[in-house]
Amino acid sequence: MEAKACLVIGAGDATGGAIARRFAREGYVACVTRRSADKLQPLVDRIQAEGGLARAFPTDARKEDEVVALVDLVETTVGPIEAMVFNIGANVPSSILDETARKFFKIWEMACLSGFLAGREVARRMVQRGRGTIIFTGATASLRGSANFAAFAGAKHALRALAQSMARELGPRGIHVCHVVIDGAIDTEFIRENFPERYALKDQDGIVNPAHIADQYWMLHCQPRDAWTHELDLRPWMEKF
Amino acid sequence: MEAKACLVIGAGDATGGAIARRFAREGYVACVTRRSADKLQPLVDRIQAEGGLARAFPTDARKEDEVVALVDLVETTVGPIEAMVFNIGANVPSSILDETARKFFKIWEMACLSGFLAGREVARRMVQRGRGTIIFTGATASLRGSANFAAFAGAKHALRALAQSMARELGPRGIHVCHVVIDGAIDTEFIRENFPERYALKDQDGIVNPAHIADQYWMLHCQPRDAWTHELDLRPWMEKF
Amino acid sequence: MEAKACLVIGAGDATGGAIARRFAREGYVACVTRRSADKLQPLVDRIQAEGGLARAFPTDARKEDEVVALVDLVETTVGPIEAMVFNIGANVPSSILDETARKFFKIWEMACLSGFLAGREVARRMVQRGRGTIIFTGATASLRGSANFAAFAGAKHALRALAQSMARELGPRGIHVCHVVIDGAIDTEFIRENFPERYALKDQDGIVNPAHIADQYWMLHCQPRDAWTHELDLRPWMEKF
Amino acid sequence: MEAKACLVIGAGDATGGAIARRFAREGYVACVTRRSADKLQPLVDRIQAEGGLARAFPTDARKEDEVVALVDLVETTVGPIEAMVFNIGANVPSSILDETARKFFKIWEMACLSGFLAGREVARRMVQRGRGTIIFTGATASLRGSANFAAFAGAKHALRALAQSMARELGPRGIHVCHVVIDGAIDTEFIRENFPERYALKDQDGIVNPAHIADQYWMLHCQPRDAWTHELDLRPWMEKF
Repeated sequence: MEAKACLVIGAGDATGGAIARRFAREGYVACVTRRSADKLQPLVDRIQAEGGLARAFPTDARKEDEVVALVDLVETTVGPIEAMVFNIGANVPSSILDETARKFFKIWEMACLSGFLAGREVARRMVQRGRGTIIFTGATASLRGSANFAAFAGAKHALRALAQSMARELGPRGIHVCHVVIDGAIDTEFIRENFPERYALKDQDGIVNPAHIADQYWMLHCQPRDAWTHELDLRPWMEKF
Repeated sequence: MEAKACLVIGAGDATGGAIARRFAREGYVACVTRRSADKLQPLVDRIQAEGGLARAFPTDARKEDEVVALVDLVETTVGPIEAMVFNIGANVPSSILDETARKFFKIWEMACLSGFLAGREVARRMVQRGRGTIIFTGATASLRGSANFAAFAGAKHALRALAQSMARELGPRGIHVCHVVIDGAIDTEFIRENFPERYALKDQDGIVNPAHIADQYWMLHCQPRDAWTHELDLRPWMEKF
Repeated sequence: MEAKACLVIGAGDATGGAIARRFAREGYVACVTRRSADKLQPLVDRIQAEGGLARAFPTDARKEDEVVALVDLVETTVGPIEAMVFNIGANVPSSILDETARKFFKIWEMACLSGFLAGREVARRMVQRGRGTIIFTGATASLRGSANFAAFAGAKHALRALAQSMARELGPRGIHVCHVVIDGAIDTEFIRENFPERYALKDQDGIVNPAHIADQYWMLHCQPRDAWTHELDLRPWMEKF
Repeated sequence: MEAKACLVIGAGDATGGAIARRFAREGYVACVTRRSADKLQPLVDRIQAEGGLARAFPTDARKEDEVVALVDLVETTVGPIEAMVFNIGANVPSSILDETARKFFKIWEMACLSGFLAGREVARRMVQRGRGTIIFTGATASLRGSANFAAFAGAKHALRALAQSMARELGPRGIHVCHVVIDGAIDTEFIRENFPERYALKDQDGIVNPAHIADQYWMLHCQPRDAWTHELDLRPWMEKF
């Protein structure tokens, strides 16, 4: 039986890692990417220790040629990509008055252009098979702009427009394209170190457990095609919205 | 061990019935309502034949005193209502020029006022326990008005505003309030008889299977409280949106 | 030359009064309604003192027969209704746990059913002429539900759905249907008495001048039909949103 | 008395030109930009023939240094920029399967990055004066993604997020930031040549007259600060939406 691949673009943080582990637990080969090979190894080791299959594909997801090569490599050496999760974010707030063109571009390049490249390349394979799941990770900033968030909200709005455009074009060709709006802090090192008061809410389930995000992504992949979800939100019970 | 109740308001159609059966399969007592006791019996019989527990509570959900009595009766004779699903719709399109005040009111009364009554009564119990799930069934018309849909879209928009208002007030008190936007035809007698061309898409999964809606409602009820969904959409892969 | 009527439903507050005065200044006969004839007289007097034409039509806008008679009376005794403004609101916040069916209904009846009745009756005349403007006054609650606002947000969402449905049906028949979202406190007696700290922002233009709302309604009425606005928002510069 | 400048970024098409002429008619110095000086001259000549003041500032709005220099030049040689209109679009539809990274980037660069650069530079001056108007031109694609529109919808969504972020940051500092959603064909050479059937609707006011867009932009600039509009839509009466 042929191996089925789940490609996770941006498996550098807690969320991407949890998603990779979840799909591996279900028998998929977790194909995980981030820029540094060294940093991918612990995730691969962990998945293998849990009895799953995983392979590291260090890639700069902003480079068209690298993404083209990545998808080709996964398809030829692992198997058909049945699910692709795009999970790169990059939020560095600035007043609009202080924002630089360089940072404005870099945030878009990481959070949107990479998503387009991965989505397009994977879609090209999936349409030939008439099946597959593509999930983009969104945020509160996908839905509204805010003071100091012009760059991040712009990239996230653009990513949502990409997800919608792809869903409307590719749904009727059998590809399930989803956008998940995560509204609230996630249980990550970053939050633990930088927002300790927020992190302290963990005892009361006030921050999102990455494993629970992963459960939802797996659920979306399993939806029968007569009842597909394009967009859902996820937030802790105590989160204001 | 105490029985847990799932109250389905509007168990008259395929969707309400499928949801009741799904929760019964998981060990909940399916407490099903519609106006006519006679029409509830086949659903109760079916759930029991499937090995589940079910009870019929014929109720006019538009009447405040009946809904108050219903919730009291379920809580005292069955057990705590852990999940409530509001599933009444009522779409009879008319040109705005021909719409009558009576029909405009009746559609709102069925699709919105009943939802408020059921939501409020159940919430009053749930807040005492600090837990519970309330799910409102929405439609495409929850999100946009259209020619000939002023009454239905109005009622559905109002129901969505109710769901949002309840989620924002009751989420921090432990109650999970959800709104599910079903966008597409559902596999019902009504569609089979009135839209045969649409119904013919069933072979290609072009109409929604009520059992798959029920799976999603059960999934929502099971979400851990650090990762709650307030709103998701469901549509067939080939549905335009 | 035939008189042109501007019918203002809900000319009881500062906003409705300002709109009536604005259209009167432009040569329209301001046909103003609210329940009490006594309370309408000062507005009629003021418009006449400003050199305009005005007539009072005391009406309970929630009653279908009264609205039918009102529109007939204006059309036969004044002239064609070229513009209709629906401006009735009714916000009495309550926790969802304390909200009553009676109040939930009354808020919908005032803020939505009345709008439907006035909109339908006026539209029936306007479609015969292939022209006319219908403007509904919305609020922040037209766009989102909030804790304690289930009733008001529901009615306002429903009114917005009505406006959209009418615009989509009647636009191609020459009727300009608009929805104006007023987001912020308006300079009214109510705000002055109940929210004095808010009212104190008047010096800094922090609350909305009803005359400026009226200017926008007049602008909407004047838009050429190749460039119609369906929805716009209005808020003070310092208002958070 | 000091001259007041209105800076129009993207005065290459009918809309930008009409806006420049409108502000010139009101006494502003129309400072018009596009890449080619030659193509700006006819617009400058026309404004001057109409009795207005205009100056051409050929600029590549995608280049940070050029935009910085442009704003500096206008402020030092003309006067304070009281209004800035960003009007560059760039819609070249492609299937997501055929879209190239180069085009995806170029559309974003023109339609979004340029808007950021112009918005930031102008805002830096305006906040010092505590006044000014910034208007971004949006489109249907600002609100929803569609098949074949991933690049354009992405750029337009991002521009809308920029407008919202700027409005929320700069509104309380006295800067009026607006986003105008133009939904429908505009009366341009491009539509005349490429969509003749659409263009034929001009006789029935079925395409938007750029002069009417310009009227709205002028109206937005004139709004008193207690009643600002952040977003409005404009479409022909017969346009489906």
